[in-house]
Amino acid sequence: MTCAWIAVDWGTSNLRAWAMDAGGGVLATGSSGDGMAGLARDQFEGRLLAVAGDWLTRGKITPAVACGMVGARQGWAEAPYSAVPCAPHGAPVAVPTTDPRLAMHILPGLKQLDPPDVMRGEETQIAGFMARHPGFAGVLCLPGTHSKWAEVAGGAVRRFRTLMTGEMFALLAGSSVLCHSVGGADDGENPAFEAAVAEALAAPDALPARLFAIRAADLLTGTDPADARARLSGLLIGAELAATRAQWSGAPVALLGAPRLGALYARALAVGGAEASLADGAQCTLDGLTAAYKEFVA
Amino acid sequence: MTCAWIAVDWGTSNLRAWAMDAGGGVLATGSSGDGMAGLARDQFEGRLLAVAGDWLTRGKITPAVACGMVGARQGWAEAPYSAVPCAPHGAPVAVPTTDPRLAMHILPGLKQLDPPDVMRGEETQIAGFMARHPGFAGVLCLPGTHSKWAEVAGGAVRRFRTLMTGEMFALLAGSSVLCHSVGGADDGENPAFEAAVAEALAAPDALPARLFAIRAADLLTGTDPADARARLSGLLIGAELAATRAQWSGAPVALLGAPRLGALYARALAVGGAEASLADGAQCTLDGLTAAYKEFVA
Repeated sequence: MTCAWIAVDWGTSNLRAWAMDAGGGVLATGSSGDGMAGLARDQFEGRLLAVAGDWLTRGKITPAVACGMVGARQGWAEAPYSAVPCAPHGAPVAVPTTDPRLAMHILPGLKQLDPPDVMRGEETQIAGFMARHPGFAGVLCLPGTHSKWAEVAGGAVRRFRTLMTGEMFALLAGSSVLCHSVGGADDGENPAFEAAVAEALAAPDALPARLFAIRAADLLTGTDPADARARLSGLLIGAELAATRAQWSGAPVALLGAPRLGALYARALAVGGAEASLADGAQCTLDGLTAAYKEFVA
Repeated sequence: MTCAWIAVDWGTSNLRAWAMDAGGGVLATGSSGDGMAGLARDQFEGRLLAVAGDWLTRGKITPAVACGMVGARQGWAEAPYSAVPCAPHGAPVAVPTTDPRLAMHILPGLKQLDPPDVMRGEETQIAGFMARHPGFAGVLCLPGTHSKWAEVAGGAVRRFRTLMTGEMFALLAGSSVLCHSVGGADDGENPAFEAAVAEALAAPDALPARLFAIRAADLLTGTDPADARARLSGLLIGAELAATRAQWSGAPVALLGAPRLGALYARALAVGGAEASLADGAQCTLDGLTAAYKEFVA
């Protein structure tokens, strides 16, 4: 096997890498918990070599293409944001390395000036989706800790918004007074989820008055922690859909993300009368890194 | 001095007590950090005596009247909720004590079945306000970690709602990604607060899309942490006002709470075109305990 190039997804808390052959096939994969948040600038190269060093060959220069928080101001090297409207990928920044076998490239994120917004990493998933669906015009939703909603058309990202739904859920379910009533795992089928999404979509302004009622209902009548969890999740995702209704209503919608989370958002969109296609987020990332390698490096 | 009775405000994290004379005057005050959350059932009496034991007289029984979480199921003794619509105070529960000098009474909280809601402690502030304003018909707002909005008329609490605004602010400002951009102290004058309240009132459904922009604006242009703090506070209090608009719009409004927080809510209500009177929350608590003492114990 010969590694033609290395694909790298380097986020706040994790590092994943793929050894790629010249035809776009995956030869090997590696990962570690060496996320950008825990590293000083001079540690990045060593941590990448710890995962991908075996894929390099003496006397040969192997390019690597990375996306994510590795390109933030506090990362390995800053890759300044591209401003929308623009293609999802601007040219990567070439980063000097100590090891002569490695040619490092870091992709920029996207920024929007009004209203202010930023992304790093998700633009590569968007690029990967667009590589497989070059004619797509509609909205892409990337659910997660910080969900992104991006309007794309003509090969460009026109506008996008970030919603802190996943982080809000984690804080309310784990660290607020609701933690005494919310529990269990997401079973993926609880109809309390759909009911809460419908409530939030019907009257999104009432959301702040609905959260504490999850705790009060438990105190007064005793409620199933799994139902309370599904209800909290439905209220927050429903509020996200209410805030982004102008984007997804009547437009083609694709969900890019982990399969379980994507399926949950598809259920929520169905409550709002919208149908969404699902694409695996990890595959989109690899496709996007591949598209960037071909366009800027190969 | 002779202590005629003891007023006690015993919440989740603090205990406050007042030695009262027969005419309603305060002879002495005491407090400790022995909140209900940290105590086992058999510890309550000792912790009250540690604060108020010196006010008791040998050979004489002194009544004490307490409100707050001390009456919760996990408190000293459960004082079951009264169901609205009802007067703010139902009869207190008499609690046996080891010390023969003390006659302990704990006031019940209020519950609402649909939509589910509960309060413990705030009903006593409401009772205190109503003791001074017996003819008041309108809405009382008790801002805080869990804000309460209560509709009162004819000496009764008709309905109420709890909004977790203060807890949400603490979680977002202290534990979310926004913590990197939000800082400083509340200066009480920042016009970014009013601007954010107006935004939230004009389009409450857009709130989830506005929070992350606080972080993004800082990343893109650098923002003043105090401005970001005022903006976050304004967005959340504005969302609270949007969710309770049917209660306060066109009705007399009184704010019961700490003076600084009350003034902040008055500024927010002014953005919505509403004028609110202010009453000191601690004084309302003492007035409410006094009213309960006169009605049920003296």
